[in-house]
Amino acid sequence: MTSDRFTIHLQPIGRRIQIRPDQSILEAAQLAGVEINSVCGGVGLCEACRVRVIKGQLSDPTLDEQNAFSTDEVRQGFRLACQAYPQSDVVIDIPPESLSTPQRLQLESQQKSQELDPVVRQSTVEIQPPSIEDLRSDVTRLRAALQPEAGNLELDYCVIQKLPGLCRSSGWKIQAIFHQSKLIQILPATPRPRILGLAVDIGTTKVAAYFVDIESGGILAQAGSMNPQIAFGEDVISRISYLINHPDQRKHPNQNLLHQRIIEGLNKLIDKMLSEIADPLISHENIVDAVVVGNTAMHHLFAGLPVEQLGISPYVPAVSEALYIPAKDIGLAIAPAALVYLPPNIAGYVGADHVAMLLPTIYPYYSDSDKKHSKVMAIDIGTNTEISLLNNGKITSCSCASGPAFEGAHIQFGMRAAPGAIEKIQITPEKKILYKTIGDQEPVGLCGSGILDAIAEMYSANLIDSKGMFLNNHPNMHIEGRNMEFVLVPAEESGHHQEIVLTRRDVNEIQLAKGAIRAGINILLAEAGLMAQDLDAFIIAGAFGTYIDIRSAMKIGMFPFVPLERCHQVGNAAGAGARQMLLSKRYRQIASELANQIHYIELSNHPKFADEFSKSLFFPAKELSI
Amino acid sequence: MTSDRFTIHLQPIGRRIQIRPDQSILEAAQLAGVEINSVCGGVGLCEACRVRVIKGQLSDPTLDEQNAFSTDEVRQGFRLACQAYPQSDVVIDIPPESLSTPQRLQLESQQKSQELDPVVRQSTVEIQPPSIEDLRSDVTRLRAALQPEAGNLELDYCVIQKLPGLCRSSGWKIQAIFHQSKLIQILPATPRPRILGLAVDIGTTKVAAYFVDIESGGILAQAGSMNPQIAFGEDVISRISYLINHPDQRKHPNQNLLHQRIIEGLNKLIDKMLSEIADPLISHENIVDAVVVGNTAMHHLFAGLPVEQLGISPYVPAVSEALYIPAKDIGLAIAPAALVYLPPNIAGYVGADHVAMLLPTIYPYYSDSDKKHSKVMAIDIGTNTEISLLNNGKITSCSCASGPAFEGAHIQFGMRAAPGAIEKIQITPEKKILYKTIGDQEPVGLCGSGILDAIAEMYSANLIDSKGMFLNNHPNMHIEGRNMEFVLVPAEESGHHQEIVLTRRDVNEIQLAKGAIRAGINILLAEAGLMAQDLDAFIIAGAFGTYIDIRSAMKIGMFPFVPLERCHQVGNAAGAGARQMLLSKRYRQIASELANQIHYIELSNHPKFADEFSKSLFFPAKELSI
Repeated sequence: MTSDRFTIHLQPIGRRIQIRPDQSILEAAQLAGVEINSVCGGVGLCEACRVRVIKGQLSDPTLDEQNAFSTDEVRQGFRLACQAYPQSDVVIDIPPESLSTPQRLQLESQQKSQELDPVVRQSTVEIQPPSIEDLRSDVTRLRAALQPEAGNLELDYCVIQKLPGLCRSSGWKIQAIFHQSKLIQILPATPRPRILGLAVDIGTTKVAAYFVDIESGGILAQAGSMNPQIAFGEDVISRISYLINHPDQRKHPNQNLLHQRIIEGLNKLIDKMLSEIADPLISHENIVDAVVVGNTAMHHLFAGLPVEQLGISPYVPAVSEALYIPAKDIGLAIAPAALVYLPPNIAGYVGADHVAMLLPTIYPYYSDSDKKHSKVMAIDIGTNTEISLLNNGKITSCSCASGPAFEGAHIQFGMRAAPGAIEKIQITPEKKILYKTIGDQEPVGLCGSGILDAIAEMYSANLIDSKGMFLNNHPNMHIEGRNMEFVLVPAEESGHHQEIVLTRRDVNEIQLAKGAIRAGINILLAEAGLMAQDLDAFIIAGAFGTYIDIRSAMKIGMFPFVPLERCHQVGNAAGAGARQMLLSKRYRQIASELANQIHYIELSNHPKFADEFSKSLFFPAKELSI
Repeated sequence: MTSDRFTIHLQPIGRRIQIRPDQSILEAAQLAGVEINSVCGGVGLCEACRVRVIKGQLSDPTLDEQNAFSTDEVRQGFRLACQAYPQSDVVIDIPPESLSTPQRLQLESQQKSQELDPVVRQSTVEIQPPSIEDLRSDVTRLRAALQPEAGNLELDYCVIQKLPGLCRSSGWKIQAIFHQSKLIQILPATPRPRILGLAVDIGTTKVAAYFVDIESGGILAQAGSMNPQIAFGEDVISRISYLINHPDQRKHPNQNLLHQRIIEGLNKLIDKMLSEIADPLISHENIVDAVVVGNTAMHHLFAGLPVEQLGISPYVPAVSEALYIPAKDIGLAIAPAALVYLPPNIAGYVGADHVAMLLPTIYPYYSDSDKKHSKVMAIDIGTNTEISLLNNGKITSCSCASGPAFEGAHIQFGMRAAPGAIEKIQITPEKKILYKTIGDQEPVGLCGSGILDAIAEMYSANLIDSKGMFLNNHPNMHIEGRNMEFVLVPAEESGHHQEIVLTRRDVNEIQLAKGAIRAGINILLAEAGLMAQDLDAFIIAGAFGTYIDIRSAMKIGMFPFVPLERCHQVGNAAGAGARQMLLSKRYRQIASELANQIHYIELSNHPKFADEFSKSLFFPAKELSI
C-alpha cells in the first residue's frame, strides 16, 4: 500500500510540508517557502540544490546525481533536491550553501532635490451629521461637504465601507485622500495624518523598498531583501520555465506561487519599515500610493500577469503601457484602494525598471537643451543587463542575458555580497595576493566585484592569457584533474578551512557574462556610429555596478575604455526613479514618453550579435593605460 | 483545568465545530453554517432556537429557558441554543422545526416585453499576431485592433491577465465584452459566446436569482433559496444586533459572516443555474453583468458595507446612490471584472428592492402622460413591508416593520410555504372547516395565506370578535390554561398526529403585523388627501402578497376596501425590475430618477402613526360587501 502524501521535514529550518510522491524535494522546499538555490529551474543541471537526507526513503539517484556527487557524498546521503522524490516521510538537511542567504543590499542612490507634484493629495472635510430631519446617506452628505471641489468625485468602494464608522468615531471630521479625482482613502483628521508612498525596485535577485513622505519628499524608511522567487530559479528564464512546466500554476496567474511569494516578500518589507518608523499614528492605511518597477518578467509576476509568452520567441510582454492596479486586487498590504503605479515596459526584456533608471541618469541630459546632444550611455548590470544610449537626442536600448555569475552563481566559490565575501583582490608585483572581505571577516568565497578583480589581476600578472587559459606562472596554480585552478586563499586562512580557488571554468562563466554585456555596448555604439571615447558620460547603475572596480571591468574588456572622469557609479538608479515618480505626476508622464520614443534593438536577432559576442569573449590587449 | 475550546457536534446534520466556552451553541451553529431559526437575534426571547443536548455538559439553564420549557422538556435536555454555553465537548440535536427548511419560493412575475438596451455589449476582434519585426505587447496590439472604436478604452486588469493565453489559444481572434467604454471580459470568438446577466432579489427571508440572455432578453434559468443569514436572526434588526454585539465581525464589514453567507448562498444559486443550463460553452465567465436588489440592510450586507448605523436612530444608510462594484471585490462567482449594479436606496428602510419593484408597477403609470394622474398604490409585503403611492405625478413611500409572522414565525403552528402547509381555509355556514395544503399532503402547519384565511373565516363565523378575543361558539374551541385555542385540524388528520390549532396569541401576532401595514397605508392616503376607494390601482407584490386571498386581507382590515378588479397581485416585482435594469441602461437611469424624486415618510416619527396603528389592530365592521 502506498500513501498518497508524505511529510517532508526540512532541517535546520524546521519546516514541515506534505507532498505527493510525484513532487520533488525542491518543490517541497518551494511550497514551504524555503529558498533553496536553483539556477537551472529544477532539471538537474546546476547542482545548486544539494541537500542531505537524514531519515526516510527517497527515489534512487539519477544519472545527473551520480555525476554530481563523489561516492563518499552519496554514502553521506547527499542528493539534488530537484531529482529526489519521497517514498516515505523524510527528514532533509539543507546545507547553508544551498540556501539563499541574507546579503548586503544596496539601497542608497544619488537623490537630487525634486519638484513635489504628487498624484495623491489630502484635504480635511467637515461633514454635516444626520438628524431626524436630515436622513441623507453618509455618502450623500460627504459629497455635499466636498462641493464644489468634487464635481465628478469617484469613490472607491473601500472608502464607502469605512465611511460610516469613521464619521461617527471622528466627530464627522475626516481627512480625504484623493488620487487625481478619485477618493481612495479616508483617515481621522486629527492629528493631521502623514501620507506615505511606497517605492519598490524588484530585481531578479534582490528587492529594495522605500517609504517616502508624499508631502515633504523625504525618505522615511528603506529596506531590502532577497527576491523570494529565487526558490523557483535564479534567473528569469528558469522562473518562466517553472511556470511553463507547472500548468496548474499557470491557470490563475494572480494565484501562482511566484506572484504570491513576491507579494508576501513585499508585505514583509512594508511591515519591517513600519516597525522601524514605530509611529503609532502611521499604519498600512497611511500608505496611499505606490510605484513598483522591475524588469518585464518581474513586473508581470508582481502584477499577476502571465509570463509564458516572455519565454517563447518573439518574447512579447502582455502589456507595455503604464498600469494602475488597486492594491487590494493583488493583496499588497497598503491602503486597499491605493492605485499601484507600474511604469511602462519597453520590450520583453527591457522593463519598467530600466525606464525608472533612465529618469535620474539619461533624462537630465535628454531634457536639457544645452546637453541634449550629449552622448550618454547608461547601463544597469544584473542577472539581465539593460543598456541605453542617448545620441542626437534619441535613446536606443538593448538587453543582454548576462546571467547570475556576477551574483556568485555558477562560480565554484562564488557567493553573494555577504559577510566573508572577498570584494577586492590585488596581486602585487611580488605575486603576493592581497584581498579585502565584506565585514572584514575570514574569507569564505568571492562576490562579483572580487571575481572581477581576481580575473583582471590574474590577467595583468600573466596568470591567464587573452583567451582565459590558465598559465602555470605562480606557485598557487594547481592542476586538478583536467582543469587548472588558482588558489586565492589557502585553507588555513579561510573561514571554512578549505582553499578558496578560482577555476578555468569560473573564468569561462565570467567571459560569457562580460562578453554578452560588451557585445550589447558595442552594437549600440556601432548603430549610432560612435566610438566609446566619444561618450560624454558612461553611467553604471545597480548594486554590482556600484561596488566593482571600473578599471578591472575595463581590463577584462567588459567595459570599453572611457576616461574615468566620465564614468559615474550611481547606485540603485531604478529605485531613485521610482521615488521620483512617486513624488511627481510629471515624471510618470515622462516615463511614458521615454518608453514610447525609445528605439529597442533585440540583440538575439541582430546580424552582428554572434560576431560581437564571440570577439568580446576574449580579454583585450593590455596596452590601455587605465 | 479548563480547555479553551470545545468541540460541538451538531446532529443530525453531522457538522463539527470548535468554539470557546464563551460562545453559545447558536454561535456554533452559525459558524458551522447550520441555519438555526433565531428571530430575536440570540437574546433568549423568541424561543425559536430550541435544541436538545444528547451528550456533554452545558451551562445551567437561564431564567428564559426555564420559562420556555416544561419540566419534562428540561428533563429531555431541551435548551435554547442562544442561552447554552459548552462546558465540555457536546453532541447537540437540532429538531427539524428549529432549522430553516426548504420551502416554495416564488419566482414568476409578470414580465412584459421590453426594449433591449443593455449596458454590456460584445464584438469580435481580430488581433495582429507578433513577429520578430513586430514586438508590440499584446495590449498594444489589442488597442490597435480596436481602433478607432476604442479611443478611450479602459481595460480591466483581469482582462490583461487573460489576454496572452486567450490570444494564443484562439488564433488571435477574440470576443471583447464591454461595459460602456470599459473592456471587462474576453472570450474565445468561435463559436460566438452567449453573454448572460444575473438578476438577484435578496429578501430578508428568501433569495431569488435569474439568468437573463443579455442579447435576447430571455430568462435562461431561475433559482431560489432561503437567505442563509437567517441563522443570524429572522429579521433585519436581529441581524444588525448580531453585528453590534460582535465587534470582531464588524471590523472588516466585507469579511463579516453575514456578508460571506449571502455571497456563498448566491454563488450556490449561480452554480445551480449553470448546471441547469448544462451548456459546456456557458460558464461563470459568460456572466458579464449583474443587478442585485434588496432592502437597505440586505444591500449593505451584500456589498460588505457596515450596517450598525442602520440600527441606531436616525437610521441612515452608508450610501443611497447607485453603486457599481467589481464582482471580484466581493467574491461573486461571475466574470471577475463584471460590474455588479446596485440600484439606489431611498432611505434606511426603503431599499433598492423597492425601487426595482416600482419599475414594473408604478412606473408604467408615472411615465405615461395619459395615466400620470392616476392614483396608484403598490405594496411589497415581507418581513419589512414597503408601500408607495403615486398621486398627482408624485410618489410617496414608507416602510412598516410587519415582522416575520406572515412567514410563519411567532405562530404556534406557523410554517413557511412548504409541502403540508395549509394555504387556504374555509369555515362553511355549517361550521365545518375545509382546508387545502401545499402539495396536497397531510397538514402539518399553516403558512401565511392559511393563517390569514383562518382569522378572516373565524371572524366571519363569529369565533373571534373585532378585538381578536376568542368566542366559545364552536365545539373546536378549547381552553388551554389561561388561553383559548381553536382546533383547525384534529390530531388524527394531521401529518404529525397532533392537533393543529390557532391560538389567541397567534391572532395577536397577526393583528400587530397587519396593524403596522394598515397604518402605513392609511398615513400615505391621508397625506395625499385620498380615500382607498379613490385608488385606480392597488398593486400587491411579493411572494406572500401573491398567494393570499385579497378578500381575507380586506376582511381582517390589513388592506382597505378597494374594488377587486382594481387589485393586482403581480408576484416578484422586485426581481422583474432587476431584470429590466439588466436589459436596459435607461431603466437604471429611471431607478435613480425615481429614488431622487420619491418623498419618504419615516413612520416611526410620524405624529399620526401611534394612533393609526392602535386603531388598525382591530378587525373592521363586517358590512363590507367583498
